[in-house]
Amino acid sequence: MNAVDTSLEAPAIADWRNYPVSAGLATLRPSAERLDAVWSDGRVSPFHHQWLRDNCPCSRCVYSVTREQLLEIVDVAEDLHPQRTRIDDQGHLLIDWQDGHHSRYHPGWLRAHAYDDASRAERHAQRPQSRLWNAKLNEQLPLFDYQAVMEDERALLDWLLAVRDIGLTQVRGVPTAPGSLQAIAQRISFIRESNFGVLFNVQSKADADSNAYTAFNLPLHSDLPTRELQPGLQFLHCLVNDAVGGESIFVDGFSIAEALRQEAPEDFRTLCEMPVEFRNKDRHSDYRCLAPIIALDAYGAVSEIRIANFLRGPFDVAAQQMPLLYRAYRHFQALTRDPRFRVIRRLDAGQLWCFDNRRTLHARNAFDPASGARHFQGCYVDRDELLSRIHVLQR
Amino acid sequence: MNAVDTSLEAPAIADWRNYPVSAGLATLRPSAERLDAVWSDGRVSPFHHQWLRDNCPCSRCVYSVTREQLLEIVDVAEDLHPQRTRIDDQGHLLIDWQDGHHSRYHPGWLRAHAYDDASRAERHAQRPQSRLWNAKLNEQLPLFDYQAVMEDERALLDWLLAVRDIGLTQVRGVPTAPGSLQAIAQRISFIRESNFGVLFNVQSKADADSNAYTAFNLPLHSDLPTRELQPGLQFLHCLVNDAVGGESIFVDGFSIAEALRQEAPEDFRTLCEMPVEFRNKDRHSDYRCLAPIIALDAYGAVSEIRIANFLRGPFDVAAQQMPLLYRAYRHFQALTRDPRFRVIRRLDAGQLWCFDNRRTLHARNAFDPASGARHFQGCYVDRDELLSRIHVLQR
Repeated sequence: MNAVDTSLEAPAIADWRNYPVSAGLATLRPSAERLDAVWSDGRVSPFHHQWLRDNCPCSRCVYSVTREQLLEIVDVAEDLHPQRTRIDDQGHLLIDWQDGHHSRYHPGWLRAHAYDDASRAERHAQRPQSRLWNAKLNEQLPLFDYQAVMEDERALLDWLLAVRDIGLTQVRGVPTAPGSLQAIAQRISFIRESNFGVLFNVQSKADADSNAYTAFNLPLHSDLPTRELQPGLQFLHCLVNDAVGGESIFVDGFSIAEALRQEAPEDFRTLCEMPVEFRNKDRHSDYRCLAPIIALDAYGAVSEIRIANFLRGPFDVAAQQMPLLYRAYRHFQALTRDPRFRVIRRLDAGQLWCFDNRRTLHARNAFDPASGARHFQGCYVDRDELLSRIHVLQR
Repeated sequence: MNAVDTSLEAPAIADWRNYPVSAGLATLRPSAERLDAVWSDGRVSPFHHQWLRDNCPCSRCVYSVTREQLLEIVDVAEDLHPQRTRIDDQGHLLIDWQDGHHSRYHPGWLRAHAYDDASRAERHAQRPQSRLWNAKLNEQLPLFDYQAVMEDERALLDWLLAVRDIGLTQVRGVPTAPGSLQAIAQRISFIRESNFGVLFNVQSKADADSNAYTAFNLPLHSDLPTRELQPGLQFLHCLVNDAVGGESIFVDGFSIAEALRQEAPEDFRTLCEMPVEFRNKDRHSDYRCLAPIIALDAYGAVSEIRIANFLRGPFDVAAQQMPLLYRAYRHFQALTRDPRFRVIRRLDAGQLWCFDNRRTLHARNAFDPASGARHFQGCYVDRDELLSRIHVLQR
């Protein structure tokens, strides 16, 4: 029983990816615990027996409707090995296992999942890279058109790639009826709800449960640092803006973190290592989150900024570390105010910001609520949803 | 200008916490960069000038409506120091700062936020602790009554504390009309949506987009390991269960991880360090997440398990590490099957499971869809929401 498509062009498993055959299997070199595949371009890829058996794509091992694995590798002998291996006339790898099971692997799929050093380095190099920016982005703001992103998949993809890689975009020509934001956010996916609602209104109000709902200036911050997972994307949609003041300010938190790493490595390390508590409370909720301001990925690259001075709790580190934490925190705050990093724009009715809330810090100048109406609506969409939509659009 | 309540019993800032005065301020010992407070019980707490100024609770520094900070510490001189410090006749600490600002601190609040080693150790010891369990929980399953948790705040709190600390609970007497789950989930907070909906139906279907929607057995797993933040709580509500088979199985993933740490420290370390990809794809979505199976907190305690064999991608680690990863993964899988850890129950109509999806792994035996109707509904609520609700109920 083998559900694999026999065409060389088709994927080994219907997972909406193609596996073009850039190099064919030339020869196989068996050894005690693995099979080394030699490719037509000379690359050698080791494949351990356990790995090969685990990834058998046959319909007994993978349910063809869901493309999800039925086999659990613990049910196979730890020392299982092939009785016979060969390359068939279509270039597939065939294995007859010692326990009677048969596997057949598409060469494009095998190459795409090979874990020799060269193949892994190749995949790593293809990962999306953040494009750092500073105040010069004021002159080349990534602008997108509402009608285009609503109707055209290519325009939608271009916008979402800019959100992913630059982390700050503006969309123009958006309807100004309250609730209009929902339709464009749902071009990505469902909206992430919070205690502030599905869509939240950014208006000055007397019973504010956060300084965001006052007319005060807000320092540069990420939204909901009080949650374990800060929202991935934030939308801010302007319905009306007749008030004096209230300009939007943005900085690339990754650029600032990298500047800090250059200028003061010890301060950078402090903000990566010492956790800070953020909290937001009202009559019905009481959120707290303890995490460092700068997060790094497995490769040491800055992957997230978490900061909002008005939601920060008292620092709680050992006494001898307290001066280090204040020095680093002040340094970071000072950098967020440095004009070389700042993009400043007034948002007009029918425009919206969509930005990476875990990277691009946002602020607003104080405004005068007596000088005219000002009504923004906002919402959040998580990074998982952005990346999923991009993957689907790129199929 | 000072918005602080002058009563010793009242909090310094209206943050819905009380700060009882367990020990009073006895004397103050000023030094160059900090003030050491000596308490009536002999404890000595250093408070750095920057920390004290940063935490001034006056109405110029904190907006009284939102209780959020207006002051940004970077706007204060780095070498700011007190001109005069004293303890007033109500036991508050008063500071006249060299720049003319005045601060007044409630002694209960100061003690609660002191960061000397003893105070920090005291707070750390008070953190909620997970109570590990094994198959013996079959005889003492935490059971709760629907009417009670819907109507009584104390019963609600008891239930939520069991969810937080044990991670597996059953609620009985739940209405069996479809959608009934929503009301009890919302006793905590809003429901976390996913691509499977707000409430999802667990039924065998021909066009399944996950093996969860088949009649197959499912190995022990967490839900949505494909997302950066796995859902915190999972609800599974039984509307009808007339089919043969389909028993629910649970294990405490934290217990299993600790057993692995004892039995095979190297395998434990491998699962903490080597990332594994989880993915779930259908026509409209394509989720991928790369993370280790075991996550540790800052103190080295197991804080999260991420595993679902049917959603796992091919292992992608360096060739020399591959045998280690297979050994560790097989070991973990084998432990999930060990009867000493397993709780097995059949869920009947009107009962629901609520469990910690990031700790308690769940599985189900295969069932025979021809033998009778079987319909469960499920939903997710995040851990932030659980903890927030507990904090509010404990006020």
